[in-house]
Amino acid sequence: MLNSLKKEVLLANQELQARNLVIYTWGNVSGIDREMGLVVIKPSGVAYDDLTVDDMVVLDLEGNIVEGKLRPSSDTATHLELYTQFPEIGGVVHTHSLWATVWAQACRGIPCRGTTHADYFYGEIPCTRPLTQEEVASDYELNTGRVIVERFAELDYREVPAVLVAEHAPFVWGKDAAEAVHNSVVLEQVAQMAYLTRELSGSDAPISAHVLEKHYLRKHGPGAYYGQ
Amino acid sequence: MLNSLKKEVLLANQELQARNLVIYTWGNVSGIDREMGLVVIKPSGVAYDDLTVDDMVVLDLEGNIVEGKLRPSSDTATHLELYTQFPEIGGVVHTHSLWATVWAQACRGIPCRGTTHADYFYGEIPCTRPLTQEEVASDYELNTGRVIVERFAELDYREVPAVLVAEHAPFVWGKDAAEAVHNSVVLEQVAQMAYLTRELSGSDAPISAHVLEKHYLRKHGPGAYYGQ
Amino acid sequence: MLNSLKKEVLLANQELQARNLVIYTWGNVSGIDREMGLVVIKPSGVAYDDLTVDDMVVLDLEGNIVEGKLRPSSDTATHLELYTQFPEIGGVVHTHSLWATVWAQACRGIPCRGTTHADYFYGEIPCTRPLTQEEVASDYELNTGRVIVERFAELDYREVPAVLVAEHAPFVWGKDAAEAVHNSVVLEQVAQMAYLTRELSGSDAPISAHVLEKHYLRKHGPGAYYGQ
Amino acid sequence: MLNSLKKEVLLANQELQARNLVIYTWGNVSGIDREMGLVVIKPSGVAYDDLTVDDMVVLDLEGNIVEGKLRPSSDTATHLELYTQFPEIGGVVHTHSLWATVWAQACRGIPCRGTTHADYFYGEIPCTRPLTQEEVASDYELNTGRVIVERFAELDYREVPAVLVAEHAPFVWGKDAAEAVHNSVVLEQVAQMAYLTRELSGSDAPISAHVLEKHYLRKHGPGAYYGQ
Repeated sequence: MLNSLKKEVLLANQELQARNLVIYTWGNVSGIDREMGLVVIKPSGVAYDDLTVDDMVVLDLEGNIVEGKLRPSSDTATHLELYTQFPEIGGVVHTHSLWATVWAQACRGIPCRGTTHADYFYGEIPCTRPLTQEEVASDYELNTGRVIVERFAELDYREVPAVLVAEHAPFVWGKDAAEAVHNSVVLEQVAQMAYLTRELSGSDAPISAHVLEKHYLRKHGPGAYYGQ
Repeated sequence: MLNSLKKEVLLANQELQARNLVIYTWGNVSGIDREMGLVVIKPSGVAYDDLTVDDMVVLDLEGNIVEGKLRPSSDTATHLELYTQFPEIGGVVHTHSLWATVWAQACRGIPCRGTTHADYFYGEIPCTRPLTQEEVASDYELNTGRVIVERFAELDYREVPAVLVAEHAPFVWGKDAAEAVHNSVVLEQVAQMAYLTRELSGSDAPISAHVLEKHYLRKHGPGAYYGQ
Repeated sequence: MLNSLKKEVLLANQELQARNLVIYTWGNVSGIDREMGLVVIKPSGVAYDDLTVDDMVVLDLEGNIVEGKLRPSSDTATHLELYTQFPEIGGVVHTHSLWATVWAQACRGIPCRGTTHADYFYGEIPCTRPLTQEEVASDYELNTGRVIVERFAELDYREVPAVLVAEHAPFVWGKDAAEAVHNSVVLEQVAQMAYLTRELSGSDAPISAHVLEKHYLRKHGPGAYYGQ
Repeated sequence: MLNSLKKEVLLANQELQARNLVIYTWGNVSGIDREMGLVVIKPSGVAYDDLTVDDMVVLDLEGNIVEGKLRPSSDTATHLELYTQFPEIGGVVHTHSLWATVWAQACRGIPCRGTTHADYFYGEIPCTRPLTQEEVASDYELNTGRVIVERFAELDYREVPAVLVAEHAPFVWGKDAAEAVHNSVVLEQVAQMAYLTRELSGSDAPISAHVLEKHYLRKHGPGAYYGQ
């Protein structure tokens, strides 16, 4: 079942490695079929080079395995919470990519320092609060999803398709698995640029509001015309 | 028409990717035929690996499309302004290459810290002022070209073939598309060297004036003898 | 003799190069057969590309050469001391990998700044004290092993499978040669992340204790379920 | 003539590119035949991929071209001065490799921060004084050689086979062209390590004198036994 989605998710997982966002098995991508309410995700602990379409695991949004012989990624509960709470997303990525993880470890959101960032993210990429001892002790992965959702209470997840989990690493999403990976590549790039800009400028000041707006909207607004 | 120029511009665009100055479609190169007054530029949003000679777009200096089925790069108006105002240039490059973009995001020019810089750029690589809200609101890409030209009021664009647009990224030029890409590669290198030199020395002091002069002129002056 | 172990150790040495942990001959891996009490180690000064199974050197734990025509790695005495004092390890790696070496040169342990670190190391990766003039003057390589063991007097070598030798570089271990190399790759990654996190946060504060515990134990504890 | 030396020098030049020490034509290697008193050097401005044995230029120590149709590297006078003043060297390299150039641009010698450095360089890698206006105005490349030699008045060029020319970049040497390139690769590595160690430790303190001595002498002293 869902062979086409499985193939998309497989390719998206392999793209993580091709884009240098992961080493070993340090990342996972999932995709959802909204009509059927089923999620396809990478199995746990399998190397990207060894993955096949048939290894992909299919689950419903409650986490019941519908198809698949392997254990789903241990981050599955986080993915499912994001699909449940963010109804317009179609793909989710988790990695420990270097520069995004550094910001997460510093427990800081990534300010928008330039148009590269503004082309994809409408303002700061936020960082969650750290999880409490209780949240870590039980249902850790689900609670990771919950603090992400909590962080977006005043934000639009469609305008800022990424988050940093404090002390941990990024989660990123998009309209499908491929776009979520694309956004992960961009996140890594803007995380590095923002880090270096901060060192060079000695300041945390974001880009001018009118430049942010222009760049985000020329690409994502109703009259979008941008494609470089 | 202009098949030879289209091929040059195609190769120059692909070189951006081969030299790690771009990911996805984050950059564009154009070239001009001065006799005909026509510019060839990359189409918008097409991956470098998929580009063909026939995809290249031909425009006149007013921006009218003379040939081509695809939309020209969304940065076209900036390229055209540079060709119009800088009459001796033959190629223009725009990228979001990492280190140059960091200086642009910090709104700082890149001081000449050593002979690597002096071999190509006769002094600081300047940064424009930020665009005003009005300049961003309408004719944004054209106004980007205008603030670049404004920044060169007291500078010779032939001696410093690159600029940083504040909060944005570099534009680079040369006698043709290939040289503009070559200068972009060098810009990225000297941007990184200058960043690290600043951290290490704790100072912004430029190279001695006589060393700058010697290195620039032994390569670009009337009695140039340098080729390493 | 020990052909299977020799092959493992050969592959582990070549993996150092494939993972960019070494240039030239700047690293060595060994493995032990605990039943026979024999260690297989890289010969000294041979390029990774030229290594063959038959080049591997076999020694007993006193350092007597049991088989092999080449001289064993000059760091052999350090490896042997670790096998003798840490009875559950099966492989040892020494490299001068960039980021781990930088922490060693700064004579600082690497604090656990995030879950990437916590997934593999149960707390700080310690740095030894510098060796005294006497320890350097005679039996230098053996004394290097001894200061490592001394540093673990209050630590469990099974929970923190790596150390930094002050002014020098890392030694890393694991249940076999392959795992020791895997841990070396992870060490390099977390060393870089910790360095950059320190710069960004302006602090040396480690991760929350409950997150460290959760991540380490979900992968290494009795009820381990993690495989990403 | 000198075909074997030409081939060595050709391979050494190509190795610069393979080891990422150069882009475009930003570096040159030469070698000397001491018996004949003749130097073989890269021609000026030729890409490494296009170089052939027959392109190599042969000169005597006064700079007279003995064989070769192309112009020798514009840095030739510096190479010749080093061969003349440092009678035991057999190969010379000049590059603008990133990290070494950053130290040169900051006009700082590279302190010995760890054993990686001590394995190859017996103490600090010195930086010359900047050239005066007069020294730059005439015989610039020869004077570059002279300030290097001046800097080694109290140093042994055999123990420290590299120098940074202030505001410029490194020159490196060795017993032959291949060793000079090898030393250039190591220089780049230790330059990066020293930079990062300085940032992390907040200090410029060198390694303990007894560790420096041990590591340098176990590899280069009369009783050398090191080969890793």
